[in-house]
Formats: sequence, C-alpha cells, structure tokens
Amino acid sequence: MNILEQLGVKVEPVDQSWITKAVGRQNSLTKPPGSLGTLEEIACRMAGIQETLSPRADRKRIVIFAADHGVTEEGVSPYPTEVTAQMVANFLRGGAAINAIATAAGAEVIVVDIGVKSPIPTVDDSRAKIQFIRKPVRSGTRNFTKEAALTETEALAAITLGYEIAKQSKRTRVNLIGLGEMGIGNTTAAAAITAALTGLSPVNVTGRGTGADDEILAKKRSIVSNGIRIHEADLKDPFSILRVFGGLEIAGLVGLCLGAAAARMAIMIDGFITTAAAALAVRLCPASLGYMFAGHLSAEPGHLALLQMLQLSPMLDLRMRLGEGTGAALAMNLMEAALACFRDMATFDDAGVSGKHELAKEAVH
Amino acid sequence: MNILEQLGVKVEPVDQSWITKAVGRQNSLTKPPGSLGTLEEIACRMAGIQETLSPRADRKRIVIFAADHGVTEEGVSPYPTEVTAQMVANFLRGGAAINAIATAAGAEVIVVDIGVKSPIPTVDDSRAKIQFIRKPVRSGTRNFTKEAALTETEALAAITLGYEIAKQSKRTRVNLIGLGEMGIGNTTAAAAITAALTGLSPVNVTGRGTGADDEILAKKRSIVSNGIRIHEADLKDPFSILRVFGGLEIAGLVGLCLGAAAARMAIMIDGFITTAAAALAVRLCPASLGYMFAGHLSAEPGHLALLQMLQLSPMLDLRMRLGEGTGAALAMNLMEAALACFRDMATFDDAGVSGKHELAKEAVH
Repeated sequence: MNILEQLGVKVEPVDQSWITKAVGRQNSLTKPPGSLGTLEEIACRMAGIQETLSPRADRKRIVIFAADHGVTEEGVSPYPTEVTAQMVANFLRGGAAINAIATAAGAEVIVVDIGVKSPIPTVDDSRAKIQFIRKPVRSGTRNFTKEAALTETEALAAITLGYEIAKQSKRTRVNLIGLGEMGIGNTTAAAAITAALTGLSPVNVTGRGTGADDEILAKKRSIVSNGIRIHEADLKDPFSILRVFGGLEIAGLVGLCLGAAAARMAIMIDGFITTAAAALAVRLCPASLGYMFAGHLSAEPGHLALLQMLQLSPMLDLRMRLGEGTGAALAMNLMEAALACFRDMATFDDAGVSGKHELAKEAVH
Repeated sequence: MNILEQLGVKVEPVDQSWITKAVGRQNSLTKPPGSLGTLEEIACRMAGIQETLSPRADRKRIVIFAADHGVTEEGVSPYPTEVTAQMVANFLRGGAAINAIATAAGAEVIVVDIGVKSPIPTVDDSRAKIQFIRKPVRSGTRNFTKEAALTETEALAAITLGYEIAKQSKRTRVNLIGLGEMGIGNTTAAAAITAALTGLSPVNVTGRGTGADDEILAKKRSIVSNGIRIHEADLKDPFSILRVFGGLEIAGLVGLCLGAAAARMAIMIDGFITTAAAALAVRLCPASLGYMFAGHLSAEPGHLALLQMLQLSPMLDLRMRLGEGTGAALAMNLMEAALACFRDMATFDDAGVSGKHELAKEAVH
C-alpha cells in the first residue's frame, strides 16, 4: 500500500538556500562564530523550514496519542493496562508531568484517544482546559505475538487521524508540534519496530520501559524476539512493520509527522516511542526528516539506536524515561531561545563591536 | 587572609531532611519513580535549599561581571580588549545573546563594570532596561606573567562587591541567581585557576576560548604554564590563586556565590569562567556547593575538569562556548520545569492512578 498516495502527502525538502542565508546571518551576530553551538544549527534549520530569517516557535502544541497494546497480556509492563485510561484522565485534569512542563514551556496540550481499552474515568474538573479528541480506531491492538496488531485498514485509519490533526494544527497557525504518547506496553512495540528498522538484536533495543524488573525485562526481550521471528516476512516495508507491531498511538504519530512535514511545520520528537514513529515516517517519506528535531535522549536503550539511524542529535540528556511528550516540551524552550538569539541579537556592525578579523589586521604590524 | 571572616560569611549546609521529604513526594507523583531523571534531583535539592515542598525559581536574575585582563597584552585572544567595553554596551542595548536568552527565560539581567579598561560606549537606547552597576575596582588586572594580577585589597574589594550584589538580590526576593561574565582574555585566567585548583597540566585545561587558532592556543598554553611556574609559591590557598591570576570579574563572581549561598539562594553556574569562580568559592567555603547547579557543559576543555572536581552534572551539553551567562540562562527554564512538575503534579492517590505495586499484587494470583 502506498500510504503517501492514499493520504495525498507531498513533502517538500527543506530549502537549503534559506539555511545558507541563515548561516550568513549567524556569522554576523555579536558572538564568536559557532559559539552558540547546537542553538545555531537549530535556528538555521528553522529558517529553512519556515523560509524566513525571522523563524518563530511561539505557537507550540503537544499532541498526545493514547492507546493500549494487546501484547500487555504477556506481562511486559509492571503497570496494569488500566493506567493508560487513568493517565488520560490525569492529562485532562492537568495533573501529569506533561501538563506541568507544557505549561512552563507555553505549549498547548491536545490528548487523542486513538485506541484506549479501559473506560476513561470521568473528569469533572476541567481547569486544565485540555482539548480531548475521542476517535478510537479500535479498543487497543491485538497481541502481536499471536497475530498482526492491526489490519491495514486500522493502521491507515490511525495514520489518517494523525495526519488530519497536523492539518488542523497548521490551520490554527501552530509552528512547532511536539510528539507525545501514552500506552502501557508501548516500549515493547517500539522495541520491535526498532529491531525491524535497524536490524539490531531485540536484546539490545529492548529496555526496562517504565521500570521493568529483571524478570519482566527478560520476558520483554523474548517477546520482541518472537515478534520479529513470527512476522519476519512482513518486515520489509515500514507500513507493514507498523501494522504488525502497532500501536495505534504510534500510527497516529506517524500520520502527525507526515502531516506536519507536508505543512512545513517543525516537529519536536520526544523519547523512544515517538522516535520509533518518526523513524517510520522517515522511511515512508525521507524528506520529512528535515522537519524533525530530537528533543532529548531517553534512558531507554533503543532510543539512541533510532536517533543514530536518523542522524539526529538530541538537545537534552537528562536520564528521563517518562514519555508523554515531556522531553519534547522541555526542549521547546531551547528552540525558542535559539530563535530569539537568531532574530534579536545585534550584528557586529549594528553594535559597533570589533570582530576577530580586526585583531588579525592589528597582529600584522 | 580569612575571607569568610572578613566578609562575615556564614553558609548553612543545605538541609538534608527537606531533601528526604522531597524524595518522598517525588515517589508519590503520577510517574514511574525516577522517570524524570535529573529533573527530580534538581527539584529535591531546591526543596532542601528553600526548605519547602513548594520550591520556586520564578525570580531569576543573571549578574554579568565585566572586566579586562592584563595578560591580553601577551596576545592570548583573537579579539581586541576593546571588545569587553563594546560588549558591555551591547548588553545594555539588549543586543547580545544573553539578552535574547534571558528574555526567553524570563530572567532579569544586571551588568557590573568591575574593571573594564576601555571606555564603555554611550548607550542612548535604553529599551532593554538593563540595570548597570559601575564600580570598577581598577582598570583591568595586571599581566600575571609579570606580577600578581591583583593586590589583596583589590581582590577583596571585588569579592565584596559581588557579595553585596547577592545580598541586594536576596532583598528583592531573587530565588535563582545566574552567573555571567565578559572579559577578553578571561579563559586564560580561568585556565590558570583550573590548573592550580585541579593540579592538572595547563595543556589539558587550556582551550581555544572565543576561537584561538593553533598559534594563539600554543601561546595561551605556554602563558598558563609560565603563570603556574612563576606563582607556584602562591597557589596553596584559593584566595591567593584568585589574587595572582585574577580577574576582577572572577573575584566578583566568587563573592556573588558566597553571598548567594549565605542567603540560601540557588546559584546557576554558566561555563568555564564562572565555574572557575564557583570552584574558588567552594574551596573557600565548602558548604556553598550545595547551592550550586551546573547549567551546561562548555566546549572549553577545562570546564569538564572543574565540574568533575565539584561533582556537578551539567544540565545541558549544546557545544556552547560563549559565556555571558548564556548557558545558565538557558538552564533556568529546565529548573522551572523541574519545579513545576514537583509542585503541580498529581499524586497516584489524588489521580486514582494505579501504581506499580498493584500489579505486583495481581501478578501473584
């Protein structure tokens, strides 16, 4: 199935000529060239994405897709699946880490039930004013150790929902979209996707997730290995990988990435699960990579493997392993600071500050 | 000379019992324990510093001490010394990187002329509303390859100015103070201080600063080695190390650190130069370390050596090497996000979210 044709996706590569112009501006600003390190690169790429020397990231949105995983019946998580629904309610009440960090970052949060299995507890207290989209494609995925997690139709429906949310975000002028997720069991699905995409051993890309002990970790590794073995014939293309392992939240994120890139919106990736989704999007549509920024490096071992494959450098490394979009939201402030420097700093000429070359001239005498 | 007695400094150690209480709260919040990584440790230490389970970092101030260095006459920087004065004017006009990043972080900036040599260009445009304190102790330091950079009286005067600024900051209820500096040649002084404090070879702790080429780098290394050799007899105590190598901005920062710690204010360290100052403050008064956070890891090689000596983990590693307080200001948003999670997240009980242990019970059946 050609997903890009199905969705009508067309992603333009980021314009290199704007990046070149931006590098020129960086070198004219009152600082030694390169001294803002990664912040300079971020701003230059944003200039390319937005095709302007005044790039902005002042309309920030985190989209959290929530869904359950059939593979949890194998006992891959120390938390019960009910926690997915309970955490959705917690997001809507404003009580989760992502609420606190998004508020600090000035980012809006949207929660999407794209396949939560348990009933979502009623939320009376709507102080947090979180937008909630309830469009479950199905009640969790199937157990991938027994069958494919999703049908083609289900996977496509979930991708399409993400894609539509990206388009809607563009209409409300969002200029930085953050990837978030919630789904008990989803590090297991992400590990299987990572093994399939990178060719690395399941043992090396499967970690403790929310805090698996040695016994659960061993079980997770064996389940991911089995999954890779059982579905071997279906691991040749990214859409099939997504379909056989799930989850619905990962499929939603794939669609969100494709839609954001098609709309020339910058994408802030979070941790392991969202990076698995971003990597699938890049396999489906390589030009989408130019719109992606890696917010942080998760403590989950498969995350580094994916970032290396994508050749993305994470902005933060704070040993976080929570997901939800917390690392993406945290990195949004760095993005804003990078752009503030790029837009607002004086040039050497404006400020009457002597450049390096002037000493070079003096040094000749 | 006992500086602490001279200043009347008394620093109380950070209260461990509040840190213990804070760890208890962290573990009750709706996230897997430890999953916010460094953010959890930051919040717990802030709870200890402020002796509350509602720590705040919402009154943020960056203090930039600016001064010149006699050692620049040896040709240790690719920039002329006039740049110190020119950059002070740039700070006051709001055109520097620190202005952009501090604005993005919601931090106030104060600039202190504690020993700038060249005339500071007039600033007509005061849109930036930067507070400017003009209290130069002397017009730059002496060349430490020929004599001690400062007299005891001068070094003490500079420390005292920093100490007074910390006390004044506390009166205006600042709860997070960031260290900033500007001084052409100051990576050379910081390298000499670092070699003296750590015992490491000058070659290993002397880097390119604002962008020295191979020739200047070789000269810097030889100058730092000479400085260590010439002043060897004076390198036994931290006050003498500061006096012989300078600079005035580093002395001001030492006083600021001591004053902030005495006032139980959290300190956000920036890059190499400010960490050299923080390390001197810790040698003078070990209890001050508990109030310090490392904002970022600079690309300057001596920085890592100092952070390792202090056993501080930097929050950011973005290959920045600008100084001014830019890394400290950038990390302030991370601090705020850490505290927002700690204060505002729901507990498992509040939110009705199942904890890990409940599955453990289920798993028994």
